Amino acid sequence: MGKMIYLDNAATTRTAPEVVQAMLPYFTEYYGNPSSVYDFAAKGKEAITTAREQIANVLGAKKEEIYFTAGGSESDNWALKATFEAYKAKGNHIITTKIEHHAILHTCEYLEKERGAKITYLDVDENGIVKLEDLEKAITPETILISVMFANNEIGSIQPIREIGMIAKEHGILFHTDAVQAFGQVPIKVDELGIDMLSSSAHKINGPKGIGFLYIRKGIKNRSFVHGGAQERKRRAGTENVPGIVGYGVAAERAERTMEERTAKEIEIRDYMIRRITDEIPYVKVNGDLKRRLPNNINVSFQFIEGESLLLMLDNYGICASSGSACTSGSLDPSHVLLAIGLPHEIAHGSLRMTLSEEITKEDADFTVDKLKEIVQNLRSMSPLYEDFMKKQK
Amino acid sequence: MGKMIYLDNAATTRTAPEVVQAMLPYFTEYYGNPSSVYDFAAKGKEAITTAREQIANVLGAKKEEIYFTAGGSESDNWALKATFEAYKAKGNHIITTKIEHHAILHTCEYLEKERGAKITYLDVDENGIVKLEDLEKAITPETILISVMFANNEIGSIQPIREIGMIAKEHGILFHTDAVQAFGQVPIKVDELGIDMLSSSAHKINGPKGIGFLYIRKGIKNRSFVHGGAQERKRRAGTENVPGIVGYGVAAERAERTMEERTAKEIEIRDYMIRRITDEIPYVKVNGDLKRRLPNNINVSFQFIEGESLLLMLDNYGICASSGSACTSGSLDPSHVLLAIGLPHEIAHGSLRMTLSEEITKEDADFTVDKLKEIVQNLRSMSPLYEDFMKKQK
Repeated sequence: MGKMIYLDNAATTRTAPEVVQAMLPYFTEYYGNPSSVYDFAAKGKEAITTAREQIANVLGAKKEEIYFTAGGSESDNWALKATFEAYKAKGNHIITTKIEHHAILHTCEYLEKERGAKITYLDVDENGIVKLEDLEKAITPETILISVMFANNEIGSIQPIREIGMIAKEHGILFHTDAVQAFGQVPIKVDELGIDMLSSSAHKINGPKGIGFLYIRKGIKNRSFVHGGAQERKRRAGTENVPGIVGYGVAAERAERTMEERTAKEIEIRDYMIRRITDEIPYVKVNGDLKRRLPNNINVSFQFIEGESLLLMLDNYGICASSGSACTSGSLDPSHVLLAIGLPHEIAHGSLRMTLSEEITKEDADFTVDKLKEIVQNLRSMSPLYEDFMKKQK
Repeated sequence: MGKMIYLDNAATTRTAPEVVQAMLPYFTEYYGNPSSVYDFAAKGKEAITTAREQIANVLGAKKEEIYFTAGGSESDNWALKATFEAYKAKGNHIITTKIEHHAILHTCEYLEKERGAKITYLDVDENGIVKLEDLEKAITPETILISVMFANNEIGSIQPIREIGMIAKEHGILFHTDAVQAFGQVPIKVDELGIDMLSSSAHKINGPKGIGFLYIRKGIKNRSFVHGGAQERKRRAGTENVPGIVGYGVAAERAERTMEERTAKEIEIRDYMIRRITDEIPYVKVNGDLKRRLPNNINVSFQFIEGESLLLMLDNYGICASSGSACTSGSLDPSHVLLAIGLPHEIAHGSLRMTLSEEITKEDADFTVDKLKEIVQNLRSMSPLYEDFMKKQK
């Protein structure tokens, strides 16, 4: 087999060698527990402060507002559960959307079933965008939190975050955004956008797996999610993952530094691939908003085809892609996101997500689209649905 | 400054070079998301299975009973909170001890305040050992869980785990143990000891920070603590920290393989140091059980002395030690563990924990005790308490 073409950067990314290099000394040299008093532990403490600053800079936040976690899912769980506990005397209503990541949706289900929360799941339009008038209508005096993802992990649609932030502020409601797919990919300034809490994960931007953060605006009441020691200003217990935190700091700084050039390149390849796919393959639909979209996201549905077969055949050519999100793969249910934007089950099943990195060249793009054409044709030629359809066309 | 003598291995350990080596390929080479379907992701999936087996082997458990987390604190939070939720229809009573780690104590406080749990905090004897008759007396028809740490992080006392397991079983109550300090240091077989759940953390046994596991016996009702994706058999959401998991597997295998020789050496140095300290320094007390004790733990209280000053002066000689646990350092309160074993405040304040590794030689031990003698004498010569005491002696 030849070269691998990795088109699943929304699932995870390669840890950048400069990130690994930065982490290494904290495993075997400066391994002291940052909570210790002796001099040897100071290196780790300082490294955490540096990483906190690197991340805060990207967001235009204060470094004390960055709380390290084990990843995006923990951050989402923390934001929702702890906010609910801190504000439940005020109200029990949370507004979110139907296309959130499962870390939000399943946490909301938990809060509903187990803790007496009331959740409104907003519909989205056919491009996967929240309708602001729906949001305003959903607000009640009991509403304590709005949680809307920054950009969708499957179809890449970017939400009107600034407008949502304004609505939240007007009504004195907290605004949390799951920015796991957006942080480091698009500019995010928490003050300008009115974001009160933001979840993120390092491994989506060439940082290591197992480390994330929750941004919590200063002054917001919050509680711990992981109880125990006094780490992270008594908010998140557990010995700090120093190498992971260092890696995240470097990855965040790197993502910010390379953003403009990198995403310009990705957008060019993305749009080129979308154009070739829609021009050259019949019965195809592009999912998600074409403009308000993550720079590296392509999501297309091929009629008459099973997404899983498509993936396996692409894999034979060394092309790594996904049908929905990695977190739900293995499940036979069609994507909740694609259903929410109105796709019928059978079309949702034939969907393909390709998420680029800066390393994807035009040659890779052409090779991928060429193979895709071949495979789609091949799979359709074996599909009874397609046969029926073509007969009817004649 | 000369060589560093690192005597704080209960706070954290140096990641073993062989562990780092094993992790490295999973950052930059086999970085695929293990939930993905393509072949490239299989390497990560397989590596996780291997690590699960390596850990299960150490415990005599099944690999499906090992659930990876971000560390000991998360494991403790999960065990308590999710068990409470799963069994609260049966009863709301949890029994634990006064000398648990804060990850247990603060989680219990949370469950009491926020969720309606009733908690019994058992006293311990002067050696830090739970009294089994107290445990039996504390059991009520409402008791759903007993959580007793395997070995104490400050004074090293090892609890009568087998007996506690038998009592739990007799009464049909679940038994969780926080084994963060014990896993890989003393033999633990979950079936022989009647353990239903066990928390552990990699960085205490030369594995990386930011990774731990919760052992959950098959058949036990449990719920998720971190909700979201379907990872860890739908029990713990979040993209798997593949390098961390790989590192933990290797560290666990290594700890098991080297246990006999390593701990024999540590016990020799430990007992030698304790003997020299008690022989050569007056007004000193050894804390914790002398026999049922972690191989690497020394905890001593020096009368008339401030532990913090002692630490700083040891640090001047490159000796890294701690007064209590790393998780509570910075706090001015005396250790809850030392108070629980009956130490008066002023003696608890003059305590020193030294936790060995296999790398500590007899020369290191002698250097440390020599300096300790000097420093204690020095500090006492400046202590008004000591002066008063000596005057009264005359």
